[in-house]
Amino acid sequence: MNELNTASAEVFVKKILENDKAYLSRAITLLESTQDAQRKKAALILELCLPYSGNSLRVGITGVPGAGKSTFIENLGKLVVLQNKKLAVLAIDPSGKKTKGSILGDKTRMEHLVKQQQVFIRPSSASGTLGGIKNSTRESIILLEAAGYDLIFVETVGVGQSETAVYDITDIFILLLLAGAGDELQGMKKGIMEMADIICINKADHDNVEKAAQTKRILQRALHLFADADNGWNCIVETCSALYSENLDTIWQQILNYEKTVKQNYFFEKKREQQMLAWFRESFQTQLNYLFTNNTVLQQELKLAEQQVAENKILPSAAAARVIEILQQKLN
Amino acid sequence: MNELNTASAEVFVKKILENDKAYLSRAITLLESTQDAQRKKAALILELCLPYSGNSLRVGITGVPGAGKSTFIENLGKLVVLQNKKLAVLAIDPSGKKTKGSILGDKTRMEHLVKQQQVFIRPSSASGTLGGIKNSTRESIILLEAAGYDLIFVETVGVGQSETAVYDITDIFILLLLAGAGDELQGMKKGIMEMADIICINKADHDNVEKAAQTKRILQRALHLFADADNGWNCIVETCSALYSENLDTIWQQILNYEKTVKQNYFFEKKREQQMLAWFRESFQTQLNYLFTNNTVLQQELKLAEQQVAENKILPSAAAARVIEILQQKLN
Repeated sequence: MNELNTASAEVFVKKILENDKAYLSRAITLLESTQDAQRKKAALILELCLPYSGNSLRVGITGVPGAGKSTFIENLGKLVVLQNKKLAVLAIDPSGKKTKGSILGDKTRMEHLVKQQQVFIRPSSASGTLGGIKNSTRESIILLEAAGYDLIFVETVGVGQSETAVYDITDIFILLLLAGAGDELQGMKKGIMEMADIICINKADHDNVEKAAQTKRILQRALHLFADADNGWNCIVETCSALYSENLDTIWQQILNYEKTVKQNYFFEKKREQQMLAWFRESFQTQLNYLFTNNTVLQQELKLAEQQVAENKILPSAAAARVIEILQQKLN
Repeated sequence: MNELNTASAEVFVKKILENDKAYLSRAITLLESTQDAQRKKAALILELCLPYSGNSLRVGITGVPGAGKSTFIENLGKLVVLQNKKLAVLAIDPSGKKTKGSILGDKTRMEHLVKQQQVFIRPSSASGTLGGIKNSTRESIILLEAAGYDLIFVETVGVGQSETAVYDITDIFILLLLAGAGDELQGMKKGIMEMADIICINKADHDNVEKAAQTKRILQRALHLFADADNGWNCIVETCSALYSENLDTIWQQILNYEKTVKQNYFFEKKREQQMLAWFRESFQTQLNYLFTNNTVLQQELKLAEQQVAENKILPSAAAARVIEILQQKLN
């Protein structure tokens, strides 16, 4: 472990390219760090890994609580590993709670996967803002791709806006539901259904088979209410039993169909480019806010403006102009 | 008209408070102007009218093409005018086309309403970006409220993101649909249904009555898929025949029910305050972008950064840090 502490960024990159899991894990820890020195080292490692990144399918997976995400990832993972895929599993969990229900918080629930050489599982980081976790997750993806992982699952536990965060950094979005489209789905947040490329109704086994099929029909009808997506793909609804590995092969085939479709119509690379530009704008905005927050004069002006706007004392555009005026004087 | 050209901002405000429609119209023209002098005068008028604003119910109305928005607004308008409401009608139409199908582009289609003293109808401005039109519309609302209009309809023709723009500046959002929830609705953009507080299935007359009732049931079932709104109100579905003024009284009652609900649970004022703060942030961002665009050095740096990010040559966060560094040097 001593050698991990002293290794240079160049050594890290060499080891990551060899898929050395100890170095990979430590590099992810570095980029999740809040310490400046560690962040700087991580930035250098990332910069050097960037040319080796991009060659994976990034799969976002979300679902209502109790939908069986852990079993789904475990058994779908088993299936893809048999097809010589190198699989990495990440999680976005802004709640920071490593509960027993969370697959990535409790590796013992992925008994089979965790033992495989071609599988890398990373529990979610313990804390941080959603924006911060989103950033370290997309940075982790770059390292994982450099290490040769060609299939990356990003799970979300569905807290806050974590689904949107996962959607923003993946190529395909899978939503896990349970049978019974009525009451059970009411807890689902707005807009989630419309992000899905594939909806899987899980636990379609035993007495639940007919109910799941019925939910599938209801969902297919409801999806007609939405406009066609701009990716040339209409959301697919499938039933499955993750526990008994039933129909997971069909779902895997649908994932591949999706990949083929969006690569043929160039949506894949277009979305990737847009995601990179969005990442840039988000970073710029975050750093700009940070700059403004640390500038006492600007910070005071912004606070005063917002307060007067909220009290209806000044026109929002006039309040904005007042702050911009100060900024302009400094820039010239 | 000469007096309109030379009148001071103070005279404008006095006349607007007296509901002088000529001055009101001219003031809106001023705020839609791209000329600096006119914009400045408009800003002063707005500032002086601000204390008199806020006392209206702002109703957003959208619908699929052919849903009968013009007839709906005409006949719902007739009904509310009988109840001593002062009604103003605005439109957000970023297409800039004054087509015959658009009610506000063709005043003759509102034969009855246009003749009423307590009604003010403003055709959509001929051109501009959606952001610009959205801004001038919310500025117009301030003037209309100062003139005593206590009910303001903001129609959108559903081009681009205009529904979201209308949603952002109104208190309640009404969606007009036609019977036949399947194919006909497929043209509807994602997320629109989820914004609606009241959905009206129009043209429920003649042979269409049963089909409309069926669509109502399908929609009510589909709405169960969405989470409860944070306004304490569940979206209501009603059928109506705008042409024969059937059930418009029920819809008007539902609008009042909504107003009562969100005023009692304080969502009304909370949303208004959030809208003002959002307006401030949008203005600030627009003016900041304008500032950056006009700063040659920053502009070049931003372009270079985006290009390198799109080509995967630099990490987005590193690219952002590079531009921020330059900005920071200038601010210190």
